[in-house]
Amino acid sequence: MPRKDPAVVTRVASIGAGPIGAGWAAYFLARSYDVTSYVHAATEEPGLRRLIDTAWESLTELGLEPGASRDRLRCTTSLAEAVADAEFVQESVPEVLPLKQAIYAELGRLVPADVVIASSTSGMTMTDIQARCPTPERTVVGHPFNPPYLMPLVEIVGGAKTAKDAVAWAEAFYRHAGKVPLVMTKEVPGFVATRLQEAIWREALHMVANGEATVEQIDTAITNGPGPRWAIMGPCMVFHVGGGPGGMAYCLDQFGPALKLPWTRLIAPELTPELRTRMVDGCEELAGERDFHALTREMNKGLVAIAKALRAAREGTR
Amino acid sequence: MPRKDPAVVTRVASIGAGPIGAGWAAYFLARSYDVTSYVHAATEEPGLRRLIDTAWESLTELGLEPGASRDRLRCTTSLAEAVADAEFVQESVPEVLPLKQAIYAELGRLVPADVVIASSTSGMTMTDIQARCPTPERTVVGHPFNPPYLMPLVEIVGGAKTAKDAVAWAEAFYRHAGKVPLVMTKEVPGFVATRLQEAIWREALHMVANGEATVEQIDTAITNGPGPRWAIMGPCMVFHVGGGPGGMAYCLDQFGPALKLPWTRLIAPELTPELRTRMVDGCEELAGERDFHALTREMNKGLVAIAKALRAAREGTR
Repeated sequence: MPRKDPAVVTRVASIGAGPIGAGWAAYFLARSYDVTSYVHAATEEPGLRRLIDTAWESLTELGLEPGASRDRLRCTTSLAEAVADAEFVQESVPEVLPLKQAIYAELGRLVPADVVIASSTSGMTMTDIQARCPTPERTVVGHPFNPPYLMPLVEIVGGAKTAKDAVAWAEAFYRHAGKVPLVMTKEVPGFVATRLQEAIWREALHMVANGEATVEQIDTAITNGPGPRWAIMGPCMVFHVGGGPGGMAYCLDQFGPALKLPWTRLIAPELTPELRTRMVDGCEELAGERDFHALTREMNKGLVAIAKALRAAREGTR
Repeated sequence: MPRKDPAVVTRVASIGAGPIGAGWAAYFLARSYDVTSYVHAATEEPGLRRLIDTAWESLTELGLEPGASRDRLRCTTSLAEAVADAEFVQESVPEVLPLKQAIYAELGRLVPADVVIASSTSGMTMTDIQARCPTPERTVVGHPFNPPYLMPLVEIVGGAKTAKDAVAWAEAFYRHAGKVPLVMTKEVPGFVATRLQEAIWREALHMVANGEATVEQIDTAITNGPGPRWAIMGPCMVFHVGGGPGGMAYCLDQFGPALKLPWTRLIAPELTPELRTRMVDGCEELAGERDFHALTREMNKGLVAIAKALRAAREGTR
């Protein structure tokens, strides 16, 4: 299916008036798109606009695109009108499968056939969502992180009936729109980011349930320990830097045995030579030209910058 | 045992010349302490001083205490001399149990009896470490996060023979020294922060092993998704804010069923009424006077500040 160049798209439709739908609308407005928001009932419009106003403060602070304006938002209670001239559709209706399926049955009919429709679902598969859609080949998951106007990540994956080029188009579109797209090759429950987040969350729940830590201790531990590092580098690169000049290879060889220790309730995989190679090669690829000293300098600069920024932000909040 | 007021301590000993020992030495120097570093061999001193110089750049950027100076560092290869007049001892020798036990056998004899000795161990229990120490009642775990001169967290827990007042003293001392102490009530393998970090790490290893995600995707997902939020609020408060005005209670009631889904390989605990109450009360206590709007504003301000700070830091690194 020939599709419009993602770089020339100017009109997007945002389906849903909750925090995610409103967050997407605000984000696209800030990136200078014309946005049509579908609201289920006209009474939802003031709430939607309030959410957009809140988002706008942060978006303004980060820098709006030339021409960006909240005046370029149109609200409608007609789904047909909302998507009539849309060149991209972001769907963010509540996480109830029959509801999603019903919306996709309609969207599949109403949205021009060459237009990609992306779902903000945080856990359902597109295979399930697209079950009743008459034109499922252009439907993909486009899962943002909350708030969608501040977190760059969008996880993209198709369903059983999705065409490959729809996934590629969504990736190109999100990237052009300033997002950081992550294309998954298969439908894994929880995608990537939510799986990692869920692992930490469940370990936290276990610890609270067992009296090993309190809610306050869990949050204190993260915000004053690994949290700030993860804003700069992910868990792999954090260990690559933590391993010193030997990097991830040193880390795995040194701390590999710790994978057998009861340091979490999650049993680790076997550290096979193949897994070791994937981890080491992956980190070295990400590091590129940056050696241990450059990476350390980058990490430290980031941590200092975050510490100072949060200090200033806290003072500003008071 | 009567101990010196933690607020009047001026002399600390740092045992070990690796990144953790050097990091602690740098941190205490920046906080205007006199520091004696024990190095195993004189040849280790230049490396130790280089690590301290690197740390000093970040510490200077964050602001040194009046009187702080690298000239107040003394290095020695004599353990006796290193601890002779120390009012606090931070031990950071390699993570090898027989080595730790041998050092504590000596430290227990050499360090004045009223002085607390804290181990930087990231996983061993103090019960094991203090096994051969003749004066174990003043030995505690004081586990920092890397780099110790930038991450505020210090996890504190005693061993079987540790006196309660030694734990309380260490907590007061670290707090006075500008750290964020977290006192655990029992020896849990991996403490608090490492357990949470290990859960995410093992899920990441599983995903890479199973071809569900690459190293790059894992790190992209975290740094562009949940990572920056965790620099501002921990996993509990992130969900408390994410739950909207209904907070953690809404979150658990709405997403509780997701705990049964295969969104990570870690099986969740049963969401009992008691666990629900602990989570909700814990979050409400942490939130205090701040309602949903105030918390959202704080989160957004923090995310914007971090995004801008990292953008500036990256430009500065180039």
